[in-house]
Amino acid sequence: MKRSYIRKILDAIDKDTISFAGGLPNEDLFPLKQISKASKKVLKDRSSLQYSKSQGIDSLREKIANFYTRVYNLETTKDEILITTGSQQAFDIILKSLNANNLIVESPSYIGALSSFRILKKDIKEFKTFEQLNNILKKDEILYCISDYQNPSTYTYTKKQREKVANILKEKDAYLIEDAAYSLLNFKGKIKKPICSFYKDKSYHLGTFSKIVAPGLRVGWIRANKELIEKILVVKESLDLHTSTFNQMLIDSYLDDNDLFKHIKKNAKNYKKRMNYMAECMEKYLPNFEFERPKGGMFIYGKFNNIKDSMQLATKALEKKVAFVPAQVFYFDEQISNEARFNFTNCNFKQTKEGIKILAKLTK
Amino acid sequence: MKRSYIRKILDAIDKDTISFAGGLPNEDLFPLKQISKASKKVLKDRSSLQYSKSQGIDSLREKIANFYTRVYNLETTKDEILITTGSQQAFDIILKSLNANNLIVESPSYIGALSSFRILKKDIKEFKTFEQLNNILKKDEILYCISDYQNPSTYTYTKKQREKVANILKEKDAYLIEDAAYSLLNFKGKIKKPICSFYKDKSYHLGTFSKIVAPGLRVGWIRANKELIEKILVVKESLDLHTSTFNQMLIDSYLDDNDLFKHIKKNAKNYKKRMNYMAECMEKYLPNFEFERPKGGMFIYGKFNNIKDSMQLATKALEKKVAFVPAQVFYFDEQISNEARFNFTNCNFKQTKEGIKILAKLTK
Repeated sequence: MKRSYIRKILDAIDKDTISFAGGLPNEDLFPLKQISKASKKVLKDRSSLQYSKSQGIDSLREKIANFYTRVYNLETTKDEILITTGSQQAFDIILKSLNANNLIVESPSYIGALSSFRILKKDIKEFKTFEQLNNILKKDEILYCISDYQNPSTYTYTKKQREKVANILKEKDAYLIEDAAYSLLNFKGKIKKPICSFYKDKSYHLGTFSKIVAPGLRVGWIRANKELIEKILVVKESLDLHTSTFNQMLIDSYLDDNDLFKHIKKNAKNYKKRMNYMAECMEKYLPNFEFERPKGGMFIYGKFNNIKDSMQLATKALEKKVAFVPAQVFYFDEQISNEARFNFTNCNFKQTKEGIKILAKLTK
Repeated sequence: MKRSYIRKILDAIDKDTISFAGGLPNEDLFPLKQISKASKKVLKDRSSLQYSKSQGIDSLREKIANFYTRVYNLETTKDEILITTGSQQAFDIILKSLNANNLIVESPSYIGALSSFRILKKDIKEFKTFEQLNNILKKDEILYCISDYQNPSTYTYTKKQREKVANILKEKDAYLIEDAAYSLLNFKGKIKKPICSFYKDKSYHLGTFSKIVAPGLRVGWIRANKELIEKILVVKESLDLHTSTFNQMLIDSYLDDNDLFKHIKKNAKNYKKRMNYMAECMEKYLPNFEFERPKGGMFIYGKFNNIKDSMQLATKALEKKVAFVPAQVFYFDEQISNEARFNFTNCNFKQTKEGIKILAKLTK
């Protein structure tokens, strides 16, 4: 077992480092005043500091269920929602509740999910094409995928592809873990129907307030049918009893008094600007880095045409106080790669330009 | 897999139920104003809502390390502390970081730990005497115990017994998980040296703010040597990335501005009164319930001389809107038992008297 490359560099970097590495939302966009107001309200109620139900507080689950019904057009009740301590926790909880030993993941995939699967000693296979997926996936195995602005590739499944994946799952009678960390954070304000809306029986849909409100509160959720929720509830209570009552009530109160989707729209507009600026800097100073501008999320992903191993570049860049993530860590087999992921939400324009220029020098 | 009996009845009971079941601290003792003040301070800093280090924030770890050095007389640095999302989470994290498949637990033991061990499919053996422990425990296996005001038995190890356990551990070269959830909550203000202070190399000491500040914040910790901390860090980051930054900073700020041990003293004084009142009610109305008054913690534990199966009584009592925990759930083999656990921290005097009187009727 070893630490995640990303968490390790997040620990290592200091304030002088220009970091394109983590998936950190921009702090300036946190609704600090609104959370302060919510905190005042919530702390009038002593039960905010008490133990609470393992599935999560009713009122917050009700609101999340309403998102699904209203925003994803997928009818959902509060009994189909379980609150998690961040979305990351969902992997451990779901996997422990199932007997499945085999996981099929996109190649590349989210490093945090891979770590979680590894620690539970699951067998992991990667797929690049739907044909491969169709060949690999077997009954009761688990497909893990991120259907919107995939981390790291930024790829978004088309409607046809979603239906296709749902059909493969149906045919194989397999489980789906659909990670929707970035789904609501899109630049055009168009929200696609999740794969799980085409495959309801054996699917889990993961959501989080980390990317749209504040990650420091560690509040996420799992949507699944009641039968699956009852199974994961047993695991959740044994893991940490329940997610912080106070933090759940904070977000619940924040949602009472604020328009979440207005807030998300503001964030997305801000992030789109940052993405476009980074893209322009890359096109100007790093012409050998090939990428497509993403339509949402927090990353630009692409490949260097003039170097073979982005890990070597990342190591050199860190010495020059610039951090990004070489794609090797996103591949389960850790193959050497010329691909790389750049976060654009956390640096200002000046830092972005400077960081890209430093990388340009290093790749010349 | 099934749900914990206690979590299940906590979900089921309503406001009209007199509950001696959970280990809920008394809400009236929560430092609500102080936490409000801390929240105001903390929310001036945007980083309180951001991602943070998996091991926990430095300043809080420093303070916890100082507790050990000062209160437990066990020199500790912040590198030897890892923050957990409640103490409950520590079981999962530690067990995943070790290869050991065998756990030895006290009989009876804490239901939440047993659930956590079961879900990780560990082999569990129980011991009643140190002779049994000595016979069962083997190299690299794990001993789990609660050395102060054990949950549920309320037993506290003497200094000699602590040294004896440490010697057995040394001889066998086994691991120790010492759960100190109630250690600081004692009625005489005398704090005993933990077993791990006699056995430092392969031991984990678990602490929590749940019983002494507020459980709704879900902040606990593990103390272990650096080498072990590095191993559990890998698991912690894969599990939930890190414990809520905001909640860690809240407690850190609370500790800056308040005397924690004065607060604990006040709580212990209050709890002692409640314990004595419940004990008096039991002696008066339930003379067939044999118990010793505990010297700390949150529970009275004993056995009914006039009934054989306290689970049957608990079921009948629930119908009459009184909840307590029959000991069967604390035994790994779930043997029928005449023992029972009563929480005294959460009910007022009137409810306590009424509840005990209802039980008296049911056992006649």
